Amino acid sequence: MESFGVIAEFNPFHFGHRYLLEEGKKLNSNGVCIAIMSGNFLQRGEPAIVNKWKRARMALKQGADLVVEIPVEESVQSANNFARAGVRIANLFQIKSLVFGSEHPNLDFQKMAGKIDDQHDRFQSYEKNFAQQLFGDSKVASNDILGINYAYWNLKLDSHLKLMPVQRVGADFNDKVIKNKEFSSATAIRNELIKHGTSSTALLTSLPRESLAELTNSQLVSWPDFFPMLKYRVISCDVAELARILNIKEGFQNRIRSQIKQSNSYEELMDHLKTRRYSVTTIQRMLTAILLNIPSTVNLDSKPRILGMNQLGRKYLSKINNSDKILNRISQKDFNNDYFYSDRADRIYQLIAPNDFMEKIILV
Amino acid sequence: MESFGVIAEFNPFHFGHRYLLEEGKKLNSNGVCIAIMSGNFLQRGEPAIVNKWKRARMALKQGADLVVEIPVEESVQSANNFARAGVRIANLFQIKSLVFGSEHPNLDFQKMAGKIDDQHDRFQSYEKNFAQQLFGDSKVASNDILGINYAYWNLKLDSHLKLMPVQRVGADFNDKVIKNKEFSSATAIRNELIKHGTSSTALLTSLPRESLAELTNSQLVSWPDFFPMLKYRVISCDVAELARILNIKEGFQNRIRSQIKQSNSYEELMDHLKTRRYSVTTIQRMLTAILLNIPSTVNLDSKPRILGMNQLGRKYLSKINNSDKILNRISQKDFNNDYFYSDRADRIYQLIAPNDFMEKIILV
Repeated sequence: MESFGVIAEFNPFHFGHRYLLEEGKKLNSNGVCIAIMSGNFLQRGEPAIVNKWKRARMALKQGADLVVEIPVEESVQSANNFARAGVRIANLFQIKSLVFGSEHPNLDFQKMAGKIDDQHDRFQSYEKNFAQQLFGDSKVASNDILGINYAYWNLKLDSHLKLMPVQRVGADFNDKVIKNKEFSSATAIRNELIKHGTSSTALLTSLPRESLAELTNSQLVSWPDFFPMLKYRVISCDVAELARILNIKEGFQNRIRSQIKQSNSYEELMDHLKTRRYSVTTIQRMLTAILLNIPSTVNLDSKPRILGMNQLGRKYLSKINNSDKILNRISQKDFNNDYFYSDRADRIYQLIAPNDFMEKIILV
Repeated sequence: MESFGVIAEFNPFHFGHRYLLEEGKKLNSNGVCIAIMSGNFLQRGEPAIVNKWKRARMALKQGADLVVEIPVEESVQSANNFARAGVRIANLFQIKSLVFGSEHPNLDFQKMAGKIDDQHDRFQSYEKNFAQQLFGDSKVASNDILGINYAYWNLKLDSHLKLMPVQRVGADFNDKVIKNKEFSSATAIRNELIKHGTSSTALLTSLPRESLAELTNSQLVSWPDFFPMLKYRVISCDVAELARILNIKEGFQNRIRSQIKQSNSYEELMDHLKTRRYSVTTIQRMLTAILLNIPSTVNLDSKPRILGMNQLGRKYLSKINNSDKILNRISQKDFNNDYFYSDRADRIYQLIAPNDFMEKIILV
């Protein structure tokens, strides 16, 4: 049975995602598509615009056969660690190939990944500029870098995923407003949603109706919703407690302690925290780890949880011999172990968006 | 220079407090009155209805010559530990006598305190029933017990305060509604304030106009205001983290972890937590320590801070030789040491009531 994986966030699921899944099916004899997706808090250090169940359902309606959740302690991570989680989970599912969008699919990702192995420490905390410096190629772009990270972990984790870059179409990854109607960036779509709600006509052409259906009547969530909790937590913690949190580095615990006092909104806080040293997403990942109280000692090998699947997904799952390393039904023991921080993240997310939350696997 | 202390919360300052201070002046040759007062979180495990600066000003306008704050880690304590803090601070100020309200001022407090010394462990966590059992006297009431606690620590801390019980007048300490117009209980007054605001005509006869002036246009604060923060904190903490908090005992960390999930308001939470074993105030003290994240290892000998004083208070302060053990001006070092948890408590209190907060000593 052919299989392929995509590592994604679907925040929300748009035409670009649908295109990627369709291409994946074509490249893999119409095999089973395993979507490896972030839960309620994302790689950019942000809460998802709608909860993971809704996003899983969007994906299942539009090409994915099984959606598995990246544990939150692995999703709120730099691109390199995020890629590690994706490749790790792909291996648990014994997936044959990994399909990903790329600005330059003709790059030799595996070869490029080999080049960075001896600079791993620098690469761990790399920035786009560093990557370009390293590869001496000004063409290397955001999704290419993710691809190189996948290749890196494919090597390191001794997995044998076939890498299948797919040419990205349409909008730039980081477009902030809707430009290309059909292939708008997720960022542009989120901005439109937060600003004008689901009734915005601009969304009709840039979001599939299956996605719009899930979004309609949902509470749309963004960082400012969590600002009061974040402020309370920072005020009520010692510097030593903050220093023990995941992602916190180089005295950031002192910086946030002093800056939060004069910040009365999330925007103000970000204005105060921004420096040339840290990107917005680096800061946001630190803030998310503080909000969720994830310690730096957290285990990064928890069993991932299946959020939903269709008949084909179920059939595939029954054939692999790794199902004891994957959470299908979830027990109290799992809530206290592998699912501990993901459960906490869900409960905190639900303090803002308490409705429409489902906790049972989606079977379609 | 004659001096006397009163240990109080002034939540808010009412006619009963004024009467006590007047009696104290009469008994102490019109000497200086040092009010030893809780800050923003109180012995009953509750936030104060208005902040400590306003309450200090009420007291300074109505008989107190100097108001000193009990550090928060000592104010949110059982009656026994609260009494310890009061006696400790009275000694720092080299006060001669301690004036306190009592239902039965003819009791021999010092003798009764001597009786409990060998049962100290039980006494630490005593309840009213236990005290009555111990003393074999059904007359012993709330304020009497506080008096016995003062006497106990007067003995233990080798201090030589002269105890001056003053017959309580008017309302029962625990009256929930205003009955006796002039001497209403603080509980009844708070309930009236929260329910009907400062314009309630019932308050005109039960609150001095100096107190009403401070309360008018103030935000009135109560536990439900902090419920979202409390819920967030409990959800985002491990059981092990909760177990390290001040006042937490006998598995309460597990109980609150499981009960908070199904509680959507402070009232619901209290309904779920109440047992025959714990009084409401015992539970509230645990919840306050969780909210303020005060560890069980906290030092209970911090320097107390002066909140305000008049000319007489300043004169008295200049004559005692202990001023290095008292915070008058407060430095950054103090914020990080002696005043650490009180500052945190203030900042958390200000998340609910951000206005009208002053951070400089009141000089009248």
